[in-house]
Amino acid sequence: MAQLYSSVKPTPMLKDELDIVIPTIRNLDFLQMWRPFFEQYHLIIVQDGDPSKVINIPEGFDYELYNRNDINRILGPKASCISFKDSACRCFGYMVSKKKYIYTIDDDCFVAKDPTGKEINALEQHIKNLLSPSTPHFFNTLYDPYRDGADFVRGYPFSMRKGAITAVSHGLWLNIPDYDAPTQLVKPLEKNSRKFDLPLRLPILYVDAVMTIPKGTLFPMCGMNLAFDRELIGPAMYFGLMGDGQPIGRYDDMWAGWCVKVICDHMGWGVKTGLPYIWHSKASNPFVNLKKEYNGIFWQEEAIPFFQSVTLPKECTSVQQCYLELAKLVKEKLGKVDPYFITLATGMVTWIEAWEELNSEERTEAKAPNGNKE
Amino acid sequence: MAQLYSSVKPTPMLKDELDIVIPTIRNLDFLQMWRPFFEQYHLIIVQDGDPSKVINIPEGFDYELYNRNDINRILGPKASCISFKDSACRCFGYMVSKKKYIYTIDDDCFVAKDPTGKEINALEQHIKNLLSPSTPHFFNTLYDPYRDGADFVRGYPFSMRKGAITAVSHGLWLNIPDYDAPTQLVKPLEKNSRKFDLPLRLPILYVDAVMTIPKGTLFPMCGMNLAFDRELIGPAMYFGLMGDGQPIGRYDDMWAGWCVKVICDHMGWGVKTGLPYIWHSKASNPFVNLKKEYNGIFWQEEAIPFFQSVTLPKECTSVQQCYLELAKLVKEKLGKVDPYFITLATGMVTWIEAWEELNSEERTEAKAPNGNKE
Repeated sequence: MAQLYSSVKPTPMLKDELDIVIPTIRNLDFLQMWRPFFEQYHLIIVQDGDPSKVINIPEGFDYELYNRNDINRILGPKASCISFKDSACRCFGYMVSKKKYIYTIDDDCFVAKDPTGKEINALEQHIKNLLSPSTPHFFNTLYDPYRDGADFVRGYPFSMRKGAITAVSHGLWLNIPDYDAPTQLVKPLEKNSRKFDLPLRLPILYVDAVMTIPKGTLFPMCGMNLAFDRELIGPAMYFGLMGDGQPIGRYDDMWAGWCVKVICDHMGWGVKTGLPYIWHSKASNPFVNLKKEYNGIFWQEEAIPFFQSVTLPKECTSVQQCYLELAKLVKEKLGKVDPYFITLATGMVTWIEAWEELNSEERTEAKAPNGNKE
Repeated sequence: MAQLYSSVKPTPMLKDELDIVIPTIRNLDFLQMWRPFFEQYHLIIVQDGDPSKVINIPEGFDYELYNRNDINRILGPKASCISFKDSACRCFGYMVSKKKYIYTIDDDCFVAKDPTGKEINALEQHIKNLLSPSTPHFFNTLYDPYRDGADFVRGYPFSMRKGAITAVSHGLWLNIPDYDAPTQLVKPLEKNSRKFDLPLRLPILYVDAVMTIPKGTLFPMCGMNLAFDRELIGPAMYFGLMGDGQPIGRYDDMWAGWCVKVICDHMGWGVKTGLPYIWHSKASNPFVNLKKEYNGIFWQEEAIPFFQSVTLPKECTSVQQCYLELAKLVKEKLGKVDPYFITLATGMVTWIEAWEELNSEERTEAKAPNGNKE
């Protein structure tokens, strides 16, 4: 059957070089809507929470699934670096993948439509973003110069037009934007104060652009709709220690974003943001979010200046080296802000050890995931 | 009559605080299309080329007009800093203005339409950009957080949400993009190679976004559709020595952009780019452009790294001080690239002297422009 299917359908881009990583605690019915875009790719599902719960995956998808028991079995004591009861657990999927590229998406994200009403193939746009260069060293006012209908404008230095390798593609969201708890709490009031009957939220603007985040500039990286070159930047894509037993949540992707951006800047690689949009179906509970976030809201005021000023030594020529150096600096500088950062720095080191172990030559022996293809 | 008009029409934003500066060599018929948006503002027209030529200005506009004879009379020997036979002469208009804000536009730029077909009030959008803060110190993935329908995303530090003062608003162009001569030369061929009958150029994407160019990042500033806070950044908005008697043209706005961005970064001010679009009606001749640009194409490869690495001393607390310091460094560092930069550095100093002279307390005596309101 699969044979028949593939002889009819065109082979999608990077079919055998990309894994889709989905963290979840529920049945993956959302995949039905993604079927035309995802079904020829391999999925890595990281089941969070109760491992005895059976998660339904729609027929026809090629997947492997890991629950907490699998993670503990595969990583042993090093499993301590993988968060529990937090979508940060998704980074385990990056570690066990054998592919060059990763796309990760939340299970409350659906296919969005562009302003003409056409369904957006988010994955295809991410792949285009990753396979075309970035422009981190000089700003192009017509945004991504490599897109059709755009180019480098007058005054863009010719020596820089070859661009940089793209390591990350950060996609956006229609419907429910990625707001923090305080903004979530404040926004509906704002909208309710209008006299006429408007929906609670103004729609987010659809912005038809992809752009490179310039070198030296940090950004808030959201893990909902994110693709990256795992071979390049994978070891820095650690989503930290969040959720169960930790004083913080909802900063997993932010943490990864700060680390990744600093390391991409050091290595000369580009990070893109903008298209593609996905349809984010529902806002999470702002009260629950506030409880998870409040430490992060304080701590980011110290962490961001730290990451803005950090410089990695020239001797760091691999992502692993950069990441271990960063862990050392986090312990040293942010450890003073809160002991949590000392724990986190230890987690960062464990993460690299686990990554090396699973991604060395003799890997894959210990693995035996639950999947439909093993 | 003017009285009657203004009692009927709503007063536009910043009506008495903004001048529109237009450099030209021809009749200003293009103003007819801008009438609904410009007619309540004051225009400063800088006539380039033959001063004996009479330029027609459509009825009903409030303007002052300066030709080369006026510039020479007003500035005396300091007129040497104002370019001749190049649209760089427009910066004379910035100098003689008495207003807080400037909008400058080329005379081949018309009113553009947004994707819904509505005419874009470019000036109003520029004013909105200038009157709302910028975010140069951290990237917001939903672009300008101060626009309706946008906000700061999760992970944006709260301490940075007040933003920075906006000094510059850089608008874009539909129809004919702002390309350099080599790109102009190459692009039509590319398009002609298509089999089906397409227009020579793909339309530029309309991107519904305004964004801040991050601190530390340079950009190619185009003078076609540009607004700025003259009181803040005016003394750095010098368009250099171009055109008649100079080995370079079409780098006037680029030069200003590099200087302005470095100084805004130093002062902690923001530079925005994106909306509004204007309709750029016709491409200039690429062969003529190449002749003007070729030195700049070489020199920018040295000039941009210079501006990327330049740091202004803390002692420079005014734009004038910053600019004179920059002139010194240009002479010192870029003077080695070509003697032209030594001449340019001298022009920069003369520009500041002339600015100070015209903008001191006892100014305006020497001025007596040709206008309809003097």
